[in-house]
Order: sequence, then structure tokens, then C-alpha cells
Amino acid sequence: MTKPKLRIGLIGTGFMGKAHVFGFASAPRVFDLPYDLELHTVADITVDAANRAAAAFGFAHATADWRRIIDNPEIDVVDITAPNALHKEMALAAIRAGKHVYCEKPLAPLAQDAYEMALAAEAAGVKTQVGFNYLCNPMMTLAREMIAAGELGEIRGYRGIHCEDYMADPAGVFTFRHDPAGGGALADIGSHALATAEHLCGPITRVMGDCVTMIGERPDGKGGTRKVEVDDVGRAFLRFENGATGSIEGNWIATGRKMQHDFEIYGTKGALAFSQEHFNVLHFFSTADAKGRQGFRRIEASPDHAPYGLFCVAPGHQLGFNDLKAIEVAGYVAAIAGKGPEPFNFRKGLRIQTLVETIQTSSREQRWIDVK
Amino acid sequence: MTKPKLRIGLIGTGFMGKAHVFGFASAPRVFDLPYDLELHTVADITVDAANRAAAAFGFAHATADWRRIIDNPEIDVVDITAPNALHKEMALAAIRAGKHVYCEKPLAPLAQDAYEMALAAEAAGVKTQVGFNYLCNPMMTLAREMIAAGELGEIRGYRGIHCEDYMADPAGVFTFRHDPAGGGALADIGSHALATAEHLCGPITRVMGDCVTMIGERPDGKGGTRKVEVDDVGRAFLRFENGATGSIEGNWIATGRKMQHDFEIYGTKGALAFSQEHFNVLHFFSTADAKGRQGFRRIEASPDHAPYGLFCVAPGHQLGFNDLKAIEVAGYVAAIAGKGPEPFNFRKGLRIQTLVETIQTSSREQRWIDVK
Amino acid sequence: MTKPKLRIGLIGTGFMGKAHVFGFASAPRVFDLPYDLELHTVADITVDAANRAAAAFGFAHATADWRRIIDNPEIDVVDITAPNALHKEMALAAIRAGKHVYCEKPLAPLAQDAYEMALAAEAAGVKTQVGFNYLCNPMMTLAREMIAAGELGEIRGYRGIHCEDYMADPAGVFTFRHDPAGGGALADIGSHALATAEHLCGPITRVMGDCVTMIGERPDGKGGTRKVEVDDVGRAFLRFENGATGSIEGNWIATGRKMQHDFEIYGTKGALAFSQEHFNVLHFFSTADAKGRQGFRRIEASPDHAPYGLFCVAPGHQLGFNDLKAIEVAGYVAAIAGKGPEPFNFRKGLRIQTLVETIQTSSREQRWIDVK
Amino acid sequence: MTKPKLRIGLIGTGFMGKAHVFGFASAPRVFDLPYDLELHTVADITVDAANRAAAAFGFAHATADWRRIIDNPEIDVVDITAPNALHKEMALAAIRAGKHVYCEKPLAPLAQDAYEMALAAEAAGVKTQVGFNYLCNPMMTLAREMIAAGELGEIRGYRGIHCEDYMADPAGVFTFRHDPAGGGALADIGSHALATAEHLCGPITRVMGDCVTMIGERPDGKGGTRKVEVDDVGRAFLRFENGATGSIEGNWIATGRKMQHDFEIYGTKGALAFSQEHFNVLHFFSTADAKGRQGFRRIEASPDHAPYGLFCVAPGHQLGFNDLKAIEVAGYVAAIAGKGPEPFNFRKGLRIQTLVETIQTSSREQRWIDVK
Repeated sequence: MTKPKLRIGLIGTGFMGKAHVFGFASAPRVFDLPYDLELHTVADITVDAANRAAAAFGFAHATADWRRIIDNPEIDVVDITAPNALHKEMALAAIRAGKHVYCEKPLAPLAQDAYEMALAAEAAGVKTQVGFNYLCNPMMTLAREMIAAGELGEIRGYRGIHCEDYMADPAGVFTFRHDPAGGGALADIGSHALATAEHLCGPITRVMGDCVTMIGERPDGKGGTRKVEVDDVGRAFLRFENGATGSIEGNWIATGRKMQHDFEIYGTKGALAFSQEHFNVLHFFSTADAKGRQGFRRIEASPDHAPYGLFCVAPGHQLGFNDLKAIEVAGYVAAIAGKGPEPFNFRKGLRIQTLVETIQTSSREQRWIDVK
Repeated sequence: MTKPKLRIGLIGTGFMGKAHVFGFASAPRVFDLPYDLELHTVADITVDAANRAAAAFGFAHATADWRRIIDNPEIDVVDITAPNALHKEMALAAIRAGKHVYCEKPLAPLAQDAYEMALAAEAAGVKTQVGFNYLCNPMMTLAREMIAAGELGEIRGYRGIHCEDYMADPAGVFTFRHDPAGGGALADIGSHALATAEHLCGPITRVMGDCVTMIGERPDGKGGTRKVEVDDVGRAFLRFENGATGSIEGNWIATGRKMQHDFEIYGTKGALAFSQEHFNVLHFFSTADAKGRQGFRRIEASPDHAPYGLFCVAPGHQLGFNDLKAIEVAGYVAAIAGKGPEPFNFRKGLRIQTLVETIQTSSREQRWIDVK
Repeated sequence: MTKPKLRIGLIGTGFMGKAHVFGFASAPRVFDLPYDLELHTVADITVDAANRAAAAFGFAHATADWRRIIDNPEIDVVDITAPNALHKEMALAAIRAGKHVYCEKPLAPLAQDAYEMALAAEAAGVKTQVGFNYLCNPMMTLAREMIAAGELGEIRGYRGIHCEDYMADPAGVFTFRHDPAGGGALADIGSHALATAEHLCGPITRVMGDCVTMIGERPDGKGGTRKVEVDDVGRAFLRFENGATGSIEGNWIATGRKMQHDFEIYGTKGALAFSQEHFNVLHFFSTADAKGRQGFRRIEASPDHAPYGLFCVAPGHQLGFNDLKAIEVAGYVAAIAGKGPEPFNFRKGLRIQTLVETIQTSSREQRWIDVK
Repeated sequence: MTKPKLRIGLIGTGFMGKAHVFGFASAPRVFDLPYDLELHTVADITVDAANRAAAAFGFAHATADWRRIIDNPEIDVVDITAPNALHKEMALAAIRAGKHVYCEKPLAPLAQDAYEMALAAEAAGVKTQVGFNYLCNPMMTLAREMIAAGELGEIRGYRGIHCEDYMADPAGVFTFRHDPAGGGALADIGSHALATAEHLCGPITRVMGDCVTMIGERPDGKGGTRKVEVDDVGRAFLRFENGATGSIEGNWIATGRKMQHDFEIYGTKGALAFSQEHFNVLHFFSTADAKGRQGFRRIEASPDHAPYGLFCVAPGHQLGFNDLKAIEVAGYVAAIAGKGPEPFNFRKGLRIQTLVETIQTSSREQRWIDVK
């Protein structure tokens, strides 16, 4: 029962590079994948860094030149976790070389670039994946299924947020996340709130944005300061194709909040409430419950909520953040084998960028805008 | 140590009329009031209803004609809990008669009417009070004091909601709350979210509104239907004078939610989170806490948070909704005696109406509007 | 529709005296009582204190001699909130005078005294009430009704606690609560845990106690110290007549806890979880819920849970601690009028004392003991 | 920088076998281990099952005879996740062969067997580990460190539970967990509550047990029934060497509870509260907080709480159950390399068995017993 190999080349070894490797390591133990995953080559900026990463992560080869991964015919999948500004060049090169491409979010700083990338991938027929791993949570899947099955009735209202505080300190140095091209709280984490909103409620058709810069300049890391133009808080009113209305907020100066990716959905027959701070739980209110016995029900993740049971046969034991990455990997690998749709491909990554930019434009122009 | 009497005439005996009576009954036991409160006369639509209310609530007299209360020189305070559309006529009559006026929220369906009422009261020099009792909560007072004292540093962000589901059922009959003049979720409960926002963070200077009707017609109670034009959900982006930005949502079709009057405030040194679902608790995050020991602190109402200790000498025992009304009454009675400012006078009631209408206009005209 | 009067004489004006007055003040507004309550006379240790209390609480008369209340033929109900050690003498005198007696818990320091009191009251045919107001909570009533109706199936397990921290500081002075006769955490608050346990699950038949003194001496308030012999923590294993087993803990040195009167009940078909820290909520798990949709349901107090609706017609607005006292008063007054059973009479107060003493004896003798 | 290999032989491929494999797979990516872990051989009951497990889990070899693992000189560590009754024979054989032994809990059905195993391991000088992975949680480590550092002051009270409902259904078949030798709720999960209690508060010196069988017979899986003699609920009162007193409960018929491994610790200066249902959070109350600002602080797991940061550089993202296993593996592997103490060796596993049996004996004999 020997399986074909799927050889992976990883570019970038930071927070997300490591998370991907955790995903590659766990996925084959948890899931019955159609391939044996082989950690082939890892690229970092220097040879030393690449060698260290290869040893730590279990890659057979290391390189300081990411193009060696593109050029190597042995490699099947190029996994890009390098800084956002490089995603496009790397992805297009990989696509041209006929490789499947797994790219961290955001797909590209600008929707126009993301569009080019999606088109190229579709033309080349390669499988793509953008890392929106919160969507891989079994409780998120449960929410989506409940909505699709009509358990909440018609959806009327939505409120989503993604608030953290990693940029709350004005002494924090200017980084690529503050780059006017593609930076800001809305792009960085508001994008998660948007992805969840569409994942659950379907297409957003119209937005009114409110993007605000609260910390106008930051240390440049060289003794001076640099002007910040991107938003620290990005809000939007939303209209959905299904008739619902709602709002989202992305906020990276939300003092005290570490992972407040929350939503609340109101339907005609029920409601859901969720907080990523306790992401193994989904709260469900049903108007079908008996009078005097109604209330939000705290559903704990269990083997009833696939693929939780593959991680743990007992309910309530809880998945972790890195486990979501394993689910993401498994879905992508299945898609490469033709055993399922791409869970979140470049086209979807483009979609999120489009939403972000439409909201930014709306905020700038202070008017409602239809999402194309 | 005999006290002067303060004679009260109550108009209206529904939900709020009863709550006011609870306030009048409890306040003198809890607080050392400057007056003896005397429940003098109660007015309802019929003599029978008024008599029943007098007996149940402890009023000495009853009448089916509210003008008898206005005309009675014995009565010091006219308390109006009649339907919103009648507030103005009643209040102006009472003011003309030189009486103090206590009026349930909203002060009037339209800000213009509220303006007239506030002017009249100020010209007459009578003391006024509008019922925004959530603000009387000791934990709300604590929040306000902490912010004023700089415990959160500079305030940067605010998110407030007031969501309930009492209008979620489309089979619910058209009521005065659906009246185009003054009706809608934003006016009815979004107004609470606005009151709390300004109570804590100071003046709102600019808004962008999003008011939505989701249930377009309702039974008229006579076998037919009636078109609904007011909002079921009212949202707004906010700018505060102190430089903070924020948002509020009023929503009366939020399935499953009964009393979700919540806020979250982010400052440079700390944050607060509050839910009216557990209104004896305030959550406080301080960046001054030691590394590795930071987290939102669940502060329970206690005698350290005046006037909680007057209700109960032991911490954690909890106040109820009607207790907030007793605090409101006590503050108002003190103001009448000249022993403190009016806690929430007609001018402030007008302010809330102005905010509501500015948001409604902004929504209709789809543009940001300065709040006058 | 004039009602007969029920004239009340109150002995003691501290924490509980005040809480009773709040109950007398609110109950007639909330409930349609069979009597008009008249606050006739209040007794305190000095004339001044009594006069002040009369003014603050609204009593017509004041006295420094509690026997004046007993002797006054106008007074119908004697309400005793004096220190525990005086309960017996006062209650027996009142009973002899043919008066109804309302007595704060504990009924008496020793079960033997409580027994005498209960017998005397029964012989005299007067109505009695002991203040166990947590049981008056509509959510507690809901829990009891759900259990009685079989919604949880057969009850198998129970875990109850009542933990506070008002004695956690060893610098706290020796008080009557530390008196070897009737003092200690088990008697003071563990008694609440026991009352709730029997209220919900029926008779406890057998106990194994564990009573511990952690702070062995306390300041005597006169510059010296005094040995403490009563328990700071009282625990017990329980057997119930219905076949269930369980445990309780009373703990007054539980640092950080202010009102942790919690329980969890496990049945064959469901479970309940409750915390007095949020006493307007009851959590309900039902095995009848659909697979993958099961979870503890957060039921908020609403007009579906009588008598909540008499306080507030809208759900989720929440009762306070003093409101529970109003419910207690209403139940007692109805019993006096013959319109219902005594909610928690001296016989039941005796029962709690008996349980407390049996657990204390069991702890001392280190053996299981049947509860008589 | 090539590392020496550590070759692992795994016996048993069920729930825990899989969890161990997840640990072996993740640990090297998360931690800089002193060895390369090699999944050498896996044993299951049949060749087919073993082959399937080898493929799924990534072992190079498979066998239906666990003694082949013992006999293979290439293998360094024998990992035993077979049924409890087999632990002793397997472990002693492995120890005799000079191998390190990693054994799932309970170490053996009876303390006497565990004692023999611990002695054998110590005599042979091999490194041992028993799977008590809840203790590997960074928040548990934080709690232990805070207590050790005196942040809570002197510890006075402890309350621990481990409640689940996997045996709540009386139709559930009799399994090895119901075996009179070593079975029951106290042994199965109460053991976790005991392990946590000693991990945090140090040695338990004396116990009073209360072990109860609620479901007296179960289907035997062959159409008949079988008598159950082990406890469904096991409770104990506790005395600690440090002077604190406390209690624990293990309950496997706690309807609705899936992972209620909770504790609450009260000290003279502070308190901790924890629930495994949200195991990335620790609640901390400090009496050093300012008056009016005290409350339980919700500390979220972050890189400040090692080794969380090795899994994720951002706070609040949360570890999962299987991540705890990776931490367990890393600690054990470090101990094998002589770079740290054995985190939870056979001697400690024996300790837990001793506590369990002492409580069982105490319950049977209805008396307090000193723990040897």
C-alpha cells in the first residue's frame, strides 16, 4: 500500500513557515493522505539559516536561493511563507514551472497582483491554496453546515471582528505590515473577519468602509521615525447576497485582545455565537427549543464534528492552532490528488484582497461601493 | 429629623411605570434622601385601570385624566411613562405648571420636540430627568471613573452594541415602536448604546449611519398588514472629540439575545469589557500588570463601588435591573434638592435624540455627518 | 378593594434587617399581596439607633426594648434579624404572644434549640419563616421543577459549594460567627449549600463530614487574641434518599470568591449547572438534543420563570439579591393568609441545623452518620 | 549537526497510541531535541492491524508480537499503550532488555505491580515516563511556578475534579475499565485530579475516600450482563503536607461534561482557578491588586509561558490536546539524554496508584488513612 510522494519546497521559515511544517508533520498521522509528504528543500535568506531550518524542520535540502526550489523538477509543491511583497514573483515563477502553489495570506499586497496570480494558476491548471486556517476549524465547518442546512432559518444579521493588540504599542517599529501597499489592520487581520463572513454567509455585495490610522508614526528601527499611512482599525458595514446585513472590524491596537476572531449570526430560527479565544466551542440558540428552556447552547468540539475525531476520539479534548494547519494541509493535498475541491484557492485569496481594497476605497471616498 | 415631602404624580402604568414605582419604593430605604417621597396620584387611561394601579403601587389617588396631575398644586414631580408620542405635550404642560419632570426615554419622537422641551425646562428652572438607567449601574460608574482617571490611558477605540430579539418574530404586531416618527431599533435601544458611549468616552462629533429594515411589513392587529419603515438594525461608525473612533449597533431582531448591552473600550494603557448580561461585573485589562500575569480582570460589584454598598454590605451579591431605577430616582431627587447635578436631564435626552437622528439622516443620505 | 393590614415588628437593623426592609418595601409593588404591609415598630439596641432606623426604613415606631414589640397586640409578625444567639429567646416569646415569626438564618445556634422553636410554633399554630432567600431565585425554582418533572431523569450525582472570602484575612476580628455554639463556615454558609441540595434533590440520609479550622486564633478586638475552634472549611460527602450521592463544601476563606454558591447536578437524561455569581442564569444539558448539537444551554431568567415577570416583563434584565428577599416575603405573607404553604418554616430551619450538626459530629468522630 | 538516533518501538495503536505518535511527530519540529526520533517498529494484535498502523503512523516495521520489539537491540525506547493489564509484563520485559520505557497511565492496575515496575526501572537505570499529559500544559506549569514562588502566599484550600460522561449510559458495555483490578472512575480519571493536586500543592498525607458504584451491571457484549464493582464516582477529602486541606472528585457518569479537569486553589495572598475545558487560560486572583480593582484575571497562554512560544510566537492562539503530548515527549527525551529530570517517571506513576488505592481502601473501611 505504498503511496506516491508529494515533494514540498518551502520558502520562508518564520512564524508561518514553522506552522506549515507542523501541518506537514501532523497531517499524515491524522489523515489518510493520498501521498507521502516529503519535506524536500527549504529556502531562507542565508545558507546558514536555511541549514538550521532544514535540520529543525526535517527537510532534506537547504538553499539560500528560492529559485533553486522552483527549478528543481523533483519538487511538486512550492510553499510560500516569505514576506507578502515577494508572494507574486515567487508564485508566478512556481506556476510557470508547473508546480502547485501553497501561499500564506495575503495572497499579494494588491488585488490586481492576486488577480494575475489566480489567472496564471488557473491557466496552468495547478492547484493552489491560500492559508486561511481559521476556516479549517471543525466548529467553523459546523457553523457553515448548520447555516447551509437551514438550522438558523434565513440569515438576517452578522457581526464579525478580528481584534488583537500586537500593534498597540506606538513604540513598535515600522514593519512590512505598515507598508502602504497591502499593509494595515484590515488587510492583515480584518481579512480573516471577511473570509469568515463569506465562508458562513456567502457573497458580500456592497460595503461601506471606515479605515482609521491612530498611530501616525513609528520608529523606523534606525533611530528615526516613519510616517504610518495604513489603518490601525478597519471597519465596514456589509450587504450580503442572501439579504443579510452586517459589519466587521479588524483592529490591531485592541489592547488586551490576543485572538478575538469572533462572530455572531442571527437568523429567523436561531443564532450562532463564536469566539476564537475558545475555538473548540460553538454557541447555538434555537427558537425550536421549548419555552422556558431556550438559551445559547455551548457545543464542544467532538468526534461528531469532522475531522475532530481523527485527532482525538474523545470529545472536549480540544484542537490547537497548529492542528488547524494540519487540516488545511490535508484539504489541499486531497485537492492535488483530485479528491476534492481546493479548500481556499488563489481565486478565493483574490476575493479577500478585493474585499479589503473595496473597503479601503470606500473609506477613502466615503461612500458605499458594490463589490465586483 | 422630619423631611420635607416630595409628591409624585405618575402618568402611565406599564413596564416602565412599574419600574419607576419600584424605584420610588426602594430609593428611600437604600439612600438617605433629602425628601420623603409620597406617591400622590397615578393616571391611566380609564378610571378602573388607574384605581387598580393606585392600589397595586401605593398611590393615594387615581385619575383617568393626566391633566389632573398637572393641575394639582400639591404635586411636585410629574413622572411620564406614557407612550412616546405623548411625552412632549405632557412634559410641556408640567413645566408650565412649574413642576419637575421625570420622563422615560426617548424624551420625544423627534429631536426638535426634545429641544423645545429642554429649552422650556431650562427657562422654567425645573429639574428634569430622562430614564437612562443602565448608566446608573455602579460598574458603569466605575468604568467612567477609571477612564476619567486615566487608568486606560488615552482612549483609542470603542465598540458598543445593544441587541435584543423582541422584534425578531415577523408575526409580531405593528406597535408605536414601529411608528416612522421616533420608532425603530436605533431609537429604541441603539439610543442606549449611544448614551453609554458618550457617558464613557465623551462627545461624539461625527457619524456614518447604516439603518436597515429587515421585516418590511407586520400584522396591523386588525387582520391586515402594515408597512414598516423604521430600522430593525441601526449601526454607526463614530468619531469622538477625544480622538477615539468606534462603532455602535442597535438591533431588535438579534435572535437569542435578551439584554446584550455590551461595550469594549481600548486605551493606550488598558481596556474595559462589559456585558449587561452580567451587569454586576466589569472586565479590566491593564498593561501595568506584570509580564505573564496580564489578563482581563473580572471585577465584581462590591461596596467599593458606590452606591452598591447601600444596597448590600457584602460584595458579589448583585444588584437587579430595578435597583438601577432606585439609583436613578435617588440621583434625581438629590438634584431637585440642589444637592447635585441632574444625572441625565432633558438636555442630555435631547442629545441622544440628536445623535439618533443624525445617524438616521446619515444612513439615508449615505454620507458622514457632523453631530451638531 | 381595601386589604387587611399585616403589621410588622422588626428586631435588628444590620445587613439582614435592611434586606428584610427592602423585601417589605418591594413585595407589595411586585406582588398582589393579600395584606397591606405596615412597618409598625423597629427595635435596636439604643433608642437613637432605633429612631434612625425607623426614619430610614419607614417604621412608624421605634424602641430600644424588643419586648415592646412582643407585647404590642397590634403587631402581627415579629421579624428577627438580631444576632443568632438571641433568636431562640425572641422567637419563643413571640410565639407565646401568638405572633407569626420570621427569623433570619440560622434559626438557632444549636439544633436542639431550633427543635424547641419549631415545636412551639407548630403547637401555637403560628406561621414561621426562616430566611433562605437563595431558594427564592426563579432559576432555583426552575431547577427544582425540572428535576421534579423528570427532565434530568434519575438524579445520580450532586456537587454543591458555597465559598466566600470574608474570613480569609487572619487579622479579621473574632465575632459571634466564630462562637463555638453555632459558628463556623459550615453553619454560616455551608448551610446554604445544604439547603439548596435538599431543595433540589430531596432528603439527605447520611453524611461524612470534614470540618477544618485553618486560622487558629484571631484578634479579640481588645488588643489580645482569641482561640478559634470553629471550622473555616466544612465539607461533606452526601447520600440522598433518591439514591444519588454527592458532596458539599462551605468555605469562608476562599480567597477571591464573593458569592460562589454553585451546584452541578447529573441525571440520567440531563444535567444542570448553576453559579450564584450569575444567578439569573441556569445551564441545562439535555441528552435529548440532537447528536452534534448537544451542550449546556444558558437559560436566562425571563417571564417564563415565575415570578420573574412580576419584576420585569422583559427577559434577561435580571433580578438582584434584594429582589430575592421580596419573593421570600411574598411567599411568607401568602402562607400567613392561608394561600399557600410556608416556603421555609422553622421545621425546615431545624432541618438545616440538624444537617450541619450531624456533619460536624461526623467530622469530629470521623465516621459516617445517618441523618435523623 | 547530525544528531544521534532514538529508536522507538510502540505497542498498542488505539486512542493513546495515536496520541503518542502525534507527540513523536510534532516534538522534533517544535523542540530542539537531543535526538532524531525514529519510529522503528509498531506492534498490534494482528499483522494486518500492525501493518496498517505502520503505514498510517510512519513506522518502518510492524509486528504482531510485541516481544519482537523487546528483543530488537536497535530499539531504544519501548512505548506501551496496550491495555492496562499488560503494562507490567511488557514494562518488566523492556526494562530487563535495558530499554527506556514510556507507559500510558495507569502504570499498572495495582500499586504493588507499579512498585515492582518502579523498582526494576530504578535498578536497571533506565529512564521511564508515565503519560500524565495534562501536567505538561504551560498554564499548569505557570500555576505550579506561581505557587512555588509564593504568589498565592500560603496554600490553604484545594478543590479538584475530573468529570466526564463517557460511562454515563448504562447501556455501555463492560470493558477493561470496569475490571475490579485497577478499574473505576477514580483510577481512570480521578487519578488525573490527584496528579494535578500533588503537582501543584505537594504531597497528600492523609485521605478519606468515598467511592460509589451507581450503575451496578452492564451488558457484557455477549447478550448477557455483568456485575460492576468499581466506582462510577470516587471522591476524597485530602490533607496536604503543606498544611492545606482539600478534596477531589473523579466522575465518569457526569452527564454533559466532556473534559472537566478543574481546580481551584486558595492561598493567603491569592487564588487560582482553572478548567481543562479552556486549558489555555489560567484565572488568577491577587489580593495585592488595588481596592476596587480586584478580580480573577484571565491569563491567556502566550510566549511568556514556556514552552508555548515554541509552538506559536503569538499569544492566545492556543495549544491542543495533542500538543501536550509533544511537550511530554520532549521532556522525556531530554531526560533520556541526561538533560533534565524525568518529568513523570514510574515512581511518580506508582505514587498516583498508591493514592488511588489508599482512597479506595479508605472508602471501603470508612476511615481516614495516612498515605504511605
